Amino acid sequence: MELSDQLTVWAERVETNLPLYLQDCSALEPRLIEAMHYALLNGGKRIRPALVYMSCNFCGGSPELADRAAAAIEAVHSYSLVHDDLPAMDDDDLRRGQPTCHIAFDEATAILAGDALQCFAFELLSARNSELLPDRQLRMLNILSGASGASGMVAGQAYDLAHVGDSLTLEQLQAMHAFKTGRLITAALQLGAAAAGCEDPETLERLQRYGDLIGLAFQVQDDLLDIEGDTETLGKPQGSDQAQNKPTYPALLGIAGARAKLEQLHREALESLEPFGPSATPLLELANFIVTRDH
Amino acid sequence: MELSDQLTVWAERVETNLPLYLQDCSALEPRLIEAMHYALLNGGKRIRPALVYMSCNFCGGSPELADRAAAAIEAVHSYSLVHDDLPAMDDDDLRRGQPTCHIAFDEATAILAGDALQCFAFELLSARNSELLPDRQLRMLNILSGASGASGMVAGQAYDLAHVGDSLTLEQLQAMHAFKTGRLITAALQLGAAAAGCEDPETLERLQRYGDLIGLAFQVQDDLLDIEGDTETLGKPQGSDQAQNKPTYPALLGIAGARAKLEQLHREALESLEPFGPSATPLLELANFIVTRDH
Repeated sequence: MELSDQLTVWAERVETNLPLYLQDCSALEPRLIEAMHYALLNGGKRIRPALVYMSCNFCGGSPELADRAAAAIEAVHSYSLVHDDLPAMDDDDLRRGQPTCHIAFDEATAILAGDALQCFAFELLSARNSELLPDRQLRMLNILSGASGASGMVAGQAYDLAHVGDSLTLEQLQAMHAFKTGRLITAALQLGAAAAGCEDPETLERLQRYGDLIGLAFQVQDDLLDIEGDTETLGKPQGSDQAQNKPTYPALLGIAGARAKLEQLHREALESLEPFGPSATPLLELANFIVTRDH
Repeated sequence: MELSDQLTVWAERVETNLPLYLQDCSALEPRLIEAMHYALLNGGKRIRPALVYMSCNFCGGSPELADRAAAAIEAVHSYSLVHDDLPAMDDDDLRRGQPTCHIAFDEATAILAGDALQCFAFELLSARNSELLPDRQLRMLNILSGASGASGMVAGQAYDLAHVGDSLTLEQLQAMHAFKTGRLITAALQLGAAAAGCEDPETLERLQRYGDLIGLAFQVQDDLLDIEGDTETLGKPQGSDQAQNKPTYPALLGIAGARAKLEQLHREALESLEPFGPSATPLLELANFIVTRDH
Protein backbone atom coordinates (compact mmCIF):
# COMPACT_ATOMS: atom_id res chain seq x y z
CA MET A 1 0.00 0.00 0.00
CA GLU A 2 1.26 3.50 -0.81
CA LEU A 3 2.01 5.74 2.14
CA SER A 4 -0.79 8.19 1.33
CA ASP A 5 -3.30 5.31 1.27
CA GLN A 6 -1.87 3.89 4.48
CA LEU A 7 -2.10 7.30 6.17
CA THR A 8 -5.75 7.44 5.12
CA VAL A 9 -6.38 4.00 6.62
CA TRP A 10 -4.83 5.05 9.93
CA ALA A 11 -6.57 8.43 9.94
CA GLU A 12 -9.91 6.69 9.38
CA ARG A 13 -9.10 4.20 12.10
CA VAL A 14 -8.45 6.86 14.74
CA GLU A 15 -11.42 8.93 13.48
CA THR A 16 -13.66 5.89 13.91
CA ASN A 17 -12.34 5.14 17.37
CA LEU A 18 -12.40 8.67 18.82
CA PRO A 19 -16.21 9.10 18.77
CA LEU A 20 -16.65 5.59 20.16
CA TYR A 21 -14.31 6.36 23.05
CA LEU A 22 -16.06 9.72 23.59
CA GLN A 23 -19.34 7.89 24.14
CA ASP A 24 -18.01 6.74 27.49
CA CYS A 25 -17.91 10.32 28.74
CA SER A 26 -20.75 11.55 30.93
CA ALA A 27 -23.76 13.15 29.28
CA LEU A 28 -24.12 15.75 32.05
CA GLU A 29 -23.22 18.65 29.76
CA PRO A 30 -23.66 17.63 26.10
CA ARG A 31 -22.20 20.90 24.81
CA LEU A 32 -18.85 20.04 26.40
CA ILE A 33 -18.79 16.70 24.60
CA GLU A 34 -19.85 18.42 21.35
CA ALA A 35 -16.94 20.85 21.67
CA MET A 36 -14.53 17.96 22.34
CA HIS A 37 -15.93 16.15 19.32
CA TYR A 38 -15.59 19.31 17.21
CA ALA A 39 -11.97 19.80 18.27
CA LEU A 40 -11.07 16.14 17.70
CA LEU A 41 -12.81 15.65 14.35
CA ASN A 42 -12.02 18.67 12.25
CA GLY A 43 -9.89 17.15 9.53
CA GLY A 44 -6.45 17.02 11.08
CA LYS A 45 -3.63 15.20 9.30
CA ARG A 46 -3.44 12.57 12.08
CA ILE A 47 0.35 12.42 11.79
CA ARG A 48 0.79 11.51 15.46
CA PRO A 49 -1.67 8.59 15.45
CA ALA A 50 -0.06 7.38 12.19
CA LEU A 51 3.33 7.42 13.90
CA VAL A 52 1.94 5.38 16.80
CA TYR A 53 0.54 2.75 14.41
CA MET A 54 3.69 2.75 12.24
CA SER A 55 6.01 2.37 15.20
CA CYS A 56 3.85 -0.37 16.74
CA ASN A 57 3.80 -2.21 13.43
CA PHE A 58 7.57 -1.69 12.96
CA CYS A 59 8.10 -3.27 16.41
CA GLY A 60 5.89 -6.24 15.54
CA GLY A 61 2.66 -5.22 17.32
CA SER A 62 -0.88 -5.34 15.95
CA PRO A 63 -2.86 -2.10 15.40
CA GLU A 64 -5.30 -3.12 18.16
CA LEU A 65 -2.50 -2.66 20.70
CA ALA A 66 -1.95 0.91 19.48
CA ASP A 67 -5.57 2.10 19.16
CA ARG A 68 -5.94 3.83 22.51
CA ALA A 69 -2.49 5.40 22.37
CA ALA A 70 -3.21 6.74 18.87
CA ALA A 71 -6.45 8.30 20.11
CA ALA A 72 -4.80 9.60 23.28
CA ILE A 73 -1.98 11.42 21.52
CA GLU A 74 -4.45 12.99 19.11
CA ALA A 75 -6.50 14.14 22.10
CA VAL A 76 -3.43 15.86 23.57
CA HIS A 77 -2.58 17.44 20.23
CA SER A 78 -6.18 18.62 19.75
CA TYR A 79 -6.42 20.12 23.23
CA SER A 80 -3.19 22.03 22.63
CA LEU A 81 -4.60 23.51 19.40
CA VAL A 82 -7.85 24.56 21.11
CA HIS A 83 -5.93 26.37 23.84
CA ASP A 84 -3.31 27.82 21.45
CA ASP A 85 -6.09 29.39 19.39
CA LEU A 86 -7.65 31.21 22.37
CA PRO A 87 -7.75 35.04 22.33
CA ALA A 88 -5.18 35.25 25.16
CA MET A 89 -2.81 32.99 23.18
CA ASP A 90 -2.52 33.08 19.36
CA ASP A 91 -6.04 34.51 18.91
CA ASP A 92 -6.81 32.53 15.75
CA ASP A 93 -10.32 32.40 14.28
CA LEU A 94 -9.58 29.70 11.71
CA ARG A 95 -8.05 26.27 12.03
CA ARG A 96 -7.95 23.88 9.06
CA GLY A 97 -10.37 26.19 7.26
CA GLN A 98 -13.00 25.96 10.02
CA PRO A 99 -13.89 28.31 12.89
CA THR A 100 -11.69 27.54 15.90
CA CYS A 101 -13.36 25.98 18.93
CA HIS A 102 -13.86 29.22 20.86
CA ILE A 103 -15.47 30.81 17.77
CA ALA A 104 -17.73 27.83 17.06
CA PHE A 105 -18.67 27.55 20.75
CA ASP A 106 -17.44 30.14 23.23
CA GLU A 107 -14.25 30.85 25.11
CA ALA A 108 -15.22 29.17 28.40
CA THR A 109 -16.36 26.04 26.56
CA ALA A 110 -13.11 25.97 24.57
CA ILE A 111 -11.02 26.22 27.74
CA LEU A 112 -13.02 23.40 29.37
CA ALA A 113 -13.10 21.23 26.24
CA GLY A 114 -9.31 21.53 26.05
CA ASP A 115 -8.99 20.61 29.72
CA ALA A 116 -11.30 17.64 29.25
CA LEU A 117 -9.46 16.48 26.12
CA GLN A 118 -6.15 16.40 27.93
CA CYS A 119 -7.72 14.38 30.71
CA PHE A 120 -9.43 12.12 28.15
CA ALA A 121 -6.00 11.10 26.85
CA PHE A 122 -5.04 9.80 30.28
CA GLU A 123 -8.44 8.16 30.75
CA LEU A 124 -7.87 6.27 27.48
CA LEU A 125 -4.40 5.07 28.44
CA SER A 126 -5.32 4.11 32.00
CA ALA A 127 -8.49 2.16 31.14
CA ARG A 128 -8.10 -1.53 31.88
CA ASN A 129 -6.91 -3.21 28.74
CA SER A 130 -6.77 -6.97 28.65
CA GLU A 131 -4.30 -6.88 25.75
CA LEU A 132 -1.66 -4.76 27.51
CA LEU A 133 0.17 -5.61 30.71
CA PRO A 134 -0.16 -2.96 33.46
CA ASP A 135 3.55 -2.10 33.39
CA ARG A 136 3.33 -1.49 29.65
CA GLN A 137 0.28 0.77 30.11
CA LEU A 138 2.08 2.59 32.90
CA ARG A 139 5.09 3.12 30.65
CA MET A 140 2.80 4.60 27.99
CA LEU A 141 1.21 6.95 30.53
CA ASN A 142 4.67 8.01 31.60
CA ILE A 143 5.74 8.68 28.00
CA LEU A 144 2.67 10.74 27.14
CA SER A 145 2.56 12.76 30.35
CA GLY A 146 6.30 13.45 30.22
CA ALA A 147 6.07 14.73 26.65
CA SER A 148 2.97 16.87 27.13
CA GLY A 149 3.50 19.10 30.14
CA ALA A 150 6.02 21.39 31.80
CA SER A 151 8.91 19.24 30.55
CA GLY A 152 7.49 18.99 27.07
CA MET A 153 4.89 20.55 24.82
CA VAL A 154 3.51 23.13 27.27
CA ALA A 155 7.04 24.34 28.11
CA GLY A 156 7.69 24.86 24.40
CA GLN A 157 4.45 26.75 23.98
CA ALA A 158 5.23 28.96 26.99
CA TYR A 159 8.73 29.64 25.66
CA ASP A 160 7.28 30.51 22.25
CA LEU A 161 4.76 32.97 23.71
CA ALA A 162 7.43 34.53 25.92
CA HIS A 163 9.64 35.22 22.90
CA VAL A 164 7.26 36.63 20.29
CA GLY A 165 9.12 39.53 18.74
CA ASP A 166 12.50 38.51 20.24
CA SER A 167 15.50 37.49 18.15
CA LEU A 168 16.28 33.90 19.02
CA THR A 169 19.50 32.08 18.26
CA LEU A 170 19.25 28.93 16.19
CA GLU A 171 19.86 26.89 19.36
CA GLN A 172 16.99 28.64 21.15
CA LEU A 173 14.63 28.21 18.21
CA GLN A 174 15.57 24.54 17.98
CA ALA A 175 15.05 24.02 21.72
CA MET A 176 11.66 25.70 21.53
CA HIS A 177 10.48 23.43 18.72
CA ALA A 178 12.01 20.33 20.27
CA PHE A 179 9.66 20.95 23.20
CA LYS A 180 6.68 22.44 21.42
CA THR A 181 6.24 19.85 18.67
CA GLY A 182 9.18 17.47 18.83
CA ARG A 183 8.48 15.85 22.18
CA LEU A 184 4.99 14.75 21.16
CA ILE A 185 6.13 13.40 17.79
CA THR A 186 8.87 11.38 19.45
CA ALA A 187 6.35 10.28 22.08
CA ALA A 188 4.11 8.93 19.31
CA LEU A 189 6.93 6.63 18.19
CA GLN A 190 7.74 5.64 21.75
CA LEU A 191 4.07 4.89 22.47
CA GLY A 192 3.84 2.61 19.45
CA ALA A 193 7.02 0.79 20.46
CA ALA A 194 5.81 0.45 24.06
CA ALA A 195 2.40 -0.84 22.89
CA ALA A 196 4.22 -3.53 20.89
CA GLY A 197 6.34 -4.37 23.92
CA CYS A 198 9.65 -3.35 22.33
CA GLU A 199 12.43 -3.15 24.88
CA ASP A 200 15.50 -3.29 22.61
CA PRO A 201 17.63 -0.27 23.59
CA GLU A 202 19.06 0.30 20.10
CA THR A 203 15.65 0.23 18.44
CA LEU A 204 14.23 2.61 21.05
CA GLU A 205 17.20 4.96 20.73
CA ARG A 206 17.03 5.05 16.94
CA LEU A 207 13.28 5.58 16.95
CA GLN A 208 13.76 8.47 19.37
CA ARG A 209 16.46 10.02 17.18
CA TYR A 210 14.29 9.59 14.09
CA GLY A 211 11.39 11.20 15.97
CA ASP A 212 13.46 14.15 17.13
CA LEU A 213 14.67 14.77 13.57
CA ILE A 214 11.31 14.49 11.81
CA GLY A 215 9.76 16.60 14.56
CA LEU A 216 12.14 19.44 13.78
CA ALA A 217 11.77 18.85 10.04
CA PHE A 218 8.00 19.08 10.46
CA GLN A 219 8.41 22.49 12.09
CA VAL A 220 10.85 23.83 9.50
CA GLN A 221 8.41 22.79 6.77
CA ASP A 222 5.57 24.43 8.74
CA ASP A 223 7.52 27.69 8.86
CA LEU A 224 8.25 27.48 5.12
CA LEU A 225 4.60 26.75 4.32
CA ASP A 226 3.57 29.82 6.31
CA ILE A 227 5.62 31.89 3.85
CA GLU A 228 5.29 29.93 0.62
CA GLY A 229 1.98 28.14 1.12
CA ASP A 230 -1.46 29.09 0.02
CA THR A 231 -4.17 30.11 2.49
CA GLU A 232 -6.76 27.79 0.97
CA THR A 233 -4.52 24.71 0.99
CA LEU A 234 -3.18 25.53 4.45
CA GLY A 235 -6.63 26.12 5.92
CA LYS A 236 -5.23 29.08 7.85
CA PRO A 237 -4.11 32.57 6.84
CA GLN A 238 -0.79 32.41 5.01
CA GLY A 239 1.84 34.72 6.53
CA SER A 240 0.39 34.69 10.06
CA ASP A 241 3.78 33.92 11.66
CA GLN A 242 5.32 36.96 9.96
CA ALA A 243 2.33 39.12 10.83
CA GLN A 244 2.77 38.15 14.48
CA ASN A 245 6.54 38.62 14.22
CA LYS A 246 7.17 35.07 15.46
CA PRO A 247 10.66 33.61 15.45
CA THR A 248 10.92 31.09 12.59
CA TYR A 249 13.62 29.19 10.71
CA PRO A 250 13.20 31.31 7.55
CA ALA A 251 13.40 34.51 9.63
CA LEU A 252 16.67 33.27 11.11
CA LEU A 253 18.27 31.41 8.21
CA GLY A 254 16.53 32.90 5.18
CA ILE A 255 14.36 30.75 2.93
CA ALA A 256 17.31 29.01 1.26
CA GLY A 257 18.95 28.38 4.63
CA ALA A 258 15.72 26.93 6.03
CA ARG A 259 15.41 24.66 2.99
CA ALA A 260 18.99 23.46 3.49
CA LYS A 261 18.22 22.81 7.17
CA LEU A 262 15.15 20.82 6.17
CA GLU A 263 17.22 18.68 3.78
CA GLN A 264 19.86 18.04 6.42
CA LEU A 265 17.24 16.92 8.99
CA HIS A 266 15.60 14.73 6.36
CA ARG A 267 18.93 13.05 5.48
CA GLU A 268 19.78 12.44 9.13
CA ALA A 269 16.32 10.99 9.77
CA LEU A 270 16.80 8.50 6.95
CA GLU A 271 20.29 7.62 8.23
CA SER A 272 18.98 6.96 11.73
CA LEU A 273 16.90 4.05 10.41
CA GLU A 274 19.45 2.61 7.94
CA PRO A 275 20.39 -0.45 10.06
CA PHE A 276 16.81 -1.69 9.93
CA GLY A 277 16.72 -2.16 6.15
CA PRO A 278 13.38 -2.53 4.34
CA SER A 279 11.32 -3.00 7.50
CA ALA A 280 11.75 0.74 8.11
CA THR A 281 10.42 1.70 4.66
CA PRO A 282 7.07 3.11 5.92
CA LEU A 283 8.91 5.33 8.42
CA LEU A 284 11.30 6.51 5.69
CA GLU A 285 8.35 7.32 3.45
CA LEU A 286 6.78 9.30 6.24
CA ALA A 287 9.95 11.37 6.57
CA ASN A 288 9.73 12.06 2.82
CA PHE A 289 6.07 13.03 3.20
CA ILE A 290 6.81 15.47 6.01
CA VAL A 291 9.38 17.45 4.04
CA THR A 292 7.28 17.59 0.87
CA ARG A 293 3.78 18.17 2.31
CA ASP A 294 1.94 21.29 1.13
CA HIS A 295 -0.40 21.72 4.13
CA MET B 1 -3.20 14.21 67.68
CA GLU B 2 -6.13 16.57 67.18
CA LEU B 3 -7.59 16.76 63.68
CA SER B 4 -6.51 20.36 63.14
CA ASP B 5 -2.92 19.46 64.05
CA GLN B 6 -3.07 16.37 61.85
CA LEU B 7 -4.39 18.46 58.94
CA THR B 8 -1.45 20.81 59.41
CA VAL B 9 0.98 17.90 59.34
CA TRP B 10 -0.48 16.60 56.07
CA ALA B 11 -0.70 20.07 54.54
CA GLU B 12 2.97 20.65 55.36
CA ARG B 13 3.84 17.25 53.96
CA VAL B 14 2.25 17.92 50.58
CA GLU B 15 3.59 21.50 50.57
CA THR B 16 7.10 20.14 51.13
CA ASN B 17 6.73 17.53 48.40
CA LEU B 18 5.18 19.69 45.69
CA PRO B 19 8.21 21.99 45.14
CA LEU B 20 10.51 18.95 45.20
CA TYR B 21 8.47 17.21 42.53
CA LEU B 22 8.32 20.45 40.51
CA GLN B 23 12.11 20.50 40.37
CA ASP B 24 11.94 17.62 37.92
CA CYS B 25 10.19 19.83 35.36
CA SER B 26 12.25 21.33 32.58
CA ALA B 27 13.84 24.73 33.10
CA LEU B 28 13.14 25.82 29.51
CA GLU B 29 10.63 28.48 30.55
CA PRO B 30 11.12 29.38 34.24
CA ARG B 31 8.07 31.67 34.28
CA LEU B 32 5.82 28.68 33.56
CA ILE B 33 7.25 26.81 36.53
CA GLU B 34 6.92 29.94 38.69
CA ALA B 35 3.25 30.21 37.76
CA MET B 36 2.71 26.51 38.57
CA HIS B 37 4.48 27.03 41.88
CA TYR B 38 2.36 30.12 42.59
CA ALA B 39 -0.86 28.23 41.84
CA LEU B 40 0.15 25.21 43.91
CA LEU B 41 1.50 27.02 46.95
CA ASN B 42 -0.93 29.77 47.78
CA GLY B 43 -2.29 28.62 51.08
CA GLY B 44 -5.00 26.16 50.12
CA LYS B 45 -6.71 24.08 52.78
CA ARG B 46 -5.24 20.84 51.29
CA ILE B 47 -8.44 18.93 52.06
CA ARG B 48 -7.94 16.55 49.12
CA PRO B 49 -4.36 15.55 50.01
CA ALA B 50 -5.49 15.09 53.63
CA LEU B 51 -8.22 12.74 52.44
CA VAL B 52 -5.66 10.74 50.44
CA TYR B 53 -3.42 10.36 53.51
CA MET B 54 -6.35 9.64 55.82
CA SER B 55 -7.81 7.01 53.55
CA CYS B 56 -4.42 5.38 52.98
CA ASN B 57 -3.83 5.30 56.72
CA PHE B 58 -7.36 3.99 57.38
CA CYS B 59 -6.62 1.12 54.93
CA GLY B 60 -3.33 0.31 56.63
CA GLY B 61 -0.88 2.02 54.25
CA SER B 62 2.06 4.27 55.15
CA PRO B 63 2.05 7.97 54.14
CA GLU B 64 4.97 7.33 51.74
CA LEU B 65 2.62 5.27 49.56
CA ALA B 66 0.21 8.20 49.33
CA ASP B 67 2.68 11.07 48.75
CA ARG B 68 2.50 11.27 44.97
CA ALA B 69 -1.26 10.78 44.88
CA ALA B 70 -1.71 13.55 47.45
CA ALA B 71 0.42 15.89 45.33
CA ALA B 72 -1.29 14.81 42.11
CA ILE B 73 -4.82 15.47 43.31
CA GLU B 74 -3.78 18.88 44.62
CA ALA B 75 -2.26 19.62 41.20
CA VAL B 76 -5.59 18.81 39.52
CA HIS B 77 -7.50 20.91 42.05
CA SER B 78 -5.05 23.82 41.60
CA TYR B 79 -5.22 23.72 37.82
CA SER B 80 -9.02 23.80 37.98
CA LEU B 81 -8.92 26.91 40.17
CA VAL B 82 -6.48 28.68 37.83
CA HIS B 83 -8.72 28.03 34.84
CA ASP B 84 -11.97 28.76 36.73
CA ASP B 85 -10.61 32.18 37.69
CA LEU B 86 -9.86 33.20 34.07
CA PRO B 87 -11.71 36.19 32.60
CA ALA B 88 -13.69 33.95 30.23
CA MET B 89 -14.80 31.80 33.18
CA ASP B 90 -15.54 33.23 36.65
CA ASP B 91 -13.31 36.29 36.11
CA ASP B 92 -11.99 36.39 39.67
CA ASP B 93 -9.09 38.64 40.68
CA LEU B 94 -8.65 37.24 44.18
CA ARG B 95 -8.21 33.68 45.42
CA ARG B 96 -7.44 32.99 49.07
CA GLY B 97 -6.70 36.70 49.50
CA GLN B 98 -4.03 36.73 46.79
CA PRO B 99 -4.14 37.85 43.16
CA THR B 100 -5.29 34.98 40.96
CA CYS B 101 -2.73 33.42 38.65
CA HIS B 102 -3.72 35.42 35.53
CA ILE B 103 -3.50 38.65 37.55
CA ALA B 104 -0.13 37.80 39.12
CA PHE B 105 1.24 36.59 35.75
CA ASP B 106 -0.85 36.97 32.61
CA GLU B 107 -3.72 35.17 30.98
CA ALA B 108 -1.68 33.07 28.55
CA THR B 109 0.67 31.97 31.32
CA ALA B 110 -2.30 31.06 33.52
CA ILE B 111 -3.86 28.94 30.77
CA LEU B 112 -0.55 27.15 30.18
CA ALA B 113 0.27 26.76 33.88
CA GLY B 114 -3.15 25.16 34.35
CA ASP B 115 -2.54 22.83 31.43
CA ALA B 116 0.89 21.90 32.77
CA LEU B 117 -0.46 21.34 36.28
CA GLN B 118 -3.05 18.87 35.03
CA CYS B 119 -0.36 17.01 33.12
CA PHE B 120 1.95 17.16 36.16
CA ALA B 121 -0.63 15.16 38.14
CA PHE B 122 -0.40 12.33 35.63
CA GLU B 123 3.39 12.58 35.47
CA LEU B 124 3.48 12.15 39.26
CA LEU B 125 1.23 9.09 39.25
CA SER B 126 2.91 7.41 36.28
CA ALA B 127 6.51 7.86 37.47
CA ARG B 128 8.11 4.53 38.30
CA ASN B 129 7.61 3.87 41.96
CA SER B 130 9.38 0.96 43.56
CA GLU B 131 6.88 0.92 46.44
CA LEU B 132 3.75 0.53 44.31
CA LEU B 133 2.97 -2.30 41.91
CA PRO B 134 2.23 -1.19 38.33
CA ASP B 135 -1.38 -2.36 38.45
CA ARG B 136 -1.93 -0.31 41.60
CA GLN B 137 -0.40 2.78 39.95
CA LEU B 138 -2.56 2.16 36.89
CA ARG B 139 -5.66 1.93 39.06
CA MET B 140 -4.73 5.28 40.65
CA LEU B 141 -4.28 6.90 37.23
CA ASN B 142 -7.65 5.53 36.22
CA ILE B 143 -9.31 6.92 39.36
CA LEU B 144 -7.83 10.40 38.99
CA SER B 145 -8.39 10.76 35.23
CA GLY B 146 -11.94 9.43 35.50
CA ALA B 147 -12.81 11.92 38.23
CA SER B 148 -11.17 14.95 36.59
CA GLY B 149 -12.41 15.21 33.02
CA ALA B 150 -15.54 15.04 30.91
CA SER B 151 -17.07 12.42 33.21
CA GLY B 152 -16.10 14.31 36.33
CA MET B 153 -14.93 17.72 37.47
CA VAL B 154 -14.79 19.44 34.06
CA ALA B 155 -18.30 18.25 33.21
CA GLY B 156 -19.55 19.77 36.47
CA GLN B 157 -17.78 23.03 35.73
CA ALA B 158 -19.23 23.15 32.20
CA TYR B 159 -22.70 22.42 33.55
CA ASP B 160 -22.27 25.17 36.14
CA LEU B 161 -21.22 27.76 33.56
CA ALA B 162 -24.04 26.74 31.23
CA HIS B 163 -26.62 27.35 33.96
CA VAL B 164 -25.59 30.65 35.52
CA GLY B 165 -28.83 32.56 36.01
CA ASP B 166 -31.03 29.48 35.42
CA SER B 167 -33.32 28.01 38.06
CA LEU B 168 -32.08 24.51 38.76
CA THR B 169 -34.01 21.79 40.54
CA LEU B 170 -32.43 20.32 43.65
CA GLU B 171 -31.57 17.19 41.63
CA GLN B 172 -29.79 19.29 38.99
CA LEU B 173 -27.87 21.30 41.57
CA GLN B 174 -26.86 18.10 43.33
CA ALA B 175 -25.73 16.48 40.06
CA MET B 176 -23.68 19.58 39.20
CA HIS B 177 -21.87 19.52 42.52
CA ALA B 178 -21.44 15.76 42.51
CA PHE B 179 -19.41 16.25 39.33
CA LYS B 180 -17.80 19.61 40.03
CA THR B 181 -16.42 18.92 43.51
CA GLY B 182 -17.74 15.55 44.62
CA ARG B 183 -15.94 13.34 42.13
CA LEU B 184 -12.51 14.67 43.11
CA ILE B 185 -13.19 14.40 46.84
CA THR B 186 -14.34 10.81 46.44
CA ALA B 187 -11.32 10.18 44.19
CA ALA B 188 -9.03 11.37 47.00
CA LEU B 189 -10.42 8.63 49.25
CA GLN B 190 -10.20 6.04 46.48
CA LEU B 191 -6.61 7.05 45.72
CA GLY B 192 -5.60 6.60 49.34
CA ALA B 193 -7.29 3.21 49.49
CA ALA B 194 -5.66 2.13 46.21
CA ALA B 195 -2.25 3.32 47.41
CA ALA B 196 -2.67 1.14 50.50
CA GLY B 197 -3.71 -1.78 48.30
CA CYS B 198 -7.23 -2.03 49.72
CA GLU B 199 -9.44 -4.30 47.61
CA ASP B 200 -12.23 -5.05 50.07
CA PRO B 201 -15.48 -4.18 48.23
CA GLU B 202 -17.38 -3.11 51.34
CA THR B 203 -14.62 -0.78 52.49
CA LEU B 204 -14.31 0.74 49.03
CA GLU B 205 -18.06 1.17 48.72
CA ARG B 206 -18.40 2.80 52.12
CA LEU B 207 -15.46 5.12 51.47
CA GLN B 208 -17.05 6.13 48.20
CA ARG B 209 -20.39 6.80 49.89
CA TYR B 210 -18.67 8.81 52.63
CA GLY B 211 -16.79 10.77 49.93
CA ASP B 212 -19.92 11.53 47.95
CA LEU B 213 -21.67 12.78 51.10
CA ILE B 214 -18.85 14.96 52.44
CA GLY B 215 -18.27 16.29 48.91
CA LEU B 216 -21.83 17.57 48.78
CA ALA B 217 -21.63 18.77 52.39
CA PHE B 218 -18.48 20.69 51.48
CA GLN B 219 -20.37 22.47 48.71
CA VAL B 220 -23.43 23.28 50.82
CA GLN B 221 -21.13 24.80 53.44
CA ASP B 222 -19.30 26.71 50.67
CA ASP B 223 -22.60 28.18 49.51
CA LEU B 224 -23.55 29.11 53.07
CA LEU B 225 -20.16 30.71 53.69
CA ASP B 226 -20.57 32.80 50.55
CA ILE B 227 -23.66 34.33 52.18
CA GLU B 228 -22.77 34.28 55.86
CA GLY B 229 -18.97 34.36 55.77
CA ASP B 230 -16.64 37.28 56.03
CA THR B 231 -14.55 38.46 53.06
CA GLU B 232 -11.34 38.59 55.08
CA THR B 233 -11.68 35.06 56.54
CA LEU B 234 -12.85 33.65 53.21
CA GLY B 235 -10.03 35.27 51.22
CA LYS B 236 -12.51 36.06 48.45
CA PRO B 237 -15.32 38.58 48.12
CA GLN B 238 -18.31 37.51 50.22
CA GLY B 239 -21.54 37.34 48.22
CA SER B 240 -19.89 36.64 44.85
CA ASP B 241 -22.22 33.73 44.05
CA GLN B 242 -25.25 35.95 44.60
CA ALA B 243 -23.67 38.79 42.59
CA GLN B 244 -23.15 36.35 39.71
CA ASN B 245 -26.65 34.94 40.19
CA LYS B 246 -25.27 31.40 40.55
CA PRO B 247 -27.54 28.54 41.52
CA THR B 248 -26.81 27.59 45.15
CA TYR B 249 -28.38 25.52 47.92
CA PRO B 250 -29.44 28.59 49.91
CA ALA B 251 -30.98 30.13 46.78
CA LEU B 252 -33.00 26.95 46.27
CA LEU B 253 -33.75 25.87 49.83
CA GLY B 254 -33.37 29.06 51.82
CA ILE B 255 -30.67 29.42 54.47
CA ALA B 256 -32.52 27.25 57.01
CA GLY B 257 -33.21 24.60 54.36
CA ALA B 258 -29.56 24.57 53.29
CA ARG B 259 -28.50 24.18 56.93
CA ALA B 260 -30.90 21.25 57.34
CA LYS B 261 -29.50 19.68 54.17
CA LEU B 262 -25.98 20.10 55.52
CA GLU B 263 -26.94 18.37 58.76
CA GLN B 264 -28.57 15.49 56.90
CA LEU B 265 -25.48 14.94 54.72
CA HIS B 266 -23.28 15.14 57.79
CA ARG B 267 -25.35 12.52 59.62
CA GLU B 268 -25.36 10.17 56.62
CA ALA B 269 -21.60 10.54 56.23
CA LEU B 270 -21.08 9.52 59.85
CA GLU B 271 -23.47 6.58 59.41
CA SER B 272 -21.63 5.35 56.34
CA LEU B 273 -18.53 4.69 58.46
CA GLU B 274 -20.27 3.26 61.55
CA PRO B 275 -19.29 -0.38 60.93
CA PHE B 276 -15.59 0.52 61.14
CA GLY B 277 -15.72 1.70 64.75
CA PRO B 278 -12.90 3.80 66.20
CA SER B 279 -10.52 3.23 63.26
CA ALA B 280 -12.71 5.66 61.29
CA THR B 281 -12.45 8.42 63.90
CA PRO B 282 -10.16 10.70 61.83
CA LEU B 283 -12.57 10.50 58.88
CA LEU B 284 -15.52 11.28 61.17
CA GLU B 285 -13.66 14.25 62.58
CA LEU B 286 -12.98 15.48 59.06
CA ALA B 287 -16.70 15.34 58.29
CA ASN B 288 -17.29 17.46 61.41
CA PHE B 289 -14.61 19.89 60.29
CA ILE B 290 -16.15 20.29 56.83
CA VAL B 291 -19.57 21.27 58.14
CA THR B 292 -18.22 23.71 60.74
CA ARG B 293 -15.35 25.35 58.82
CA ASP B 294 -15.48 29.14 58.47
CA HIS B 295 -13.37 29.49 55.28
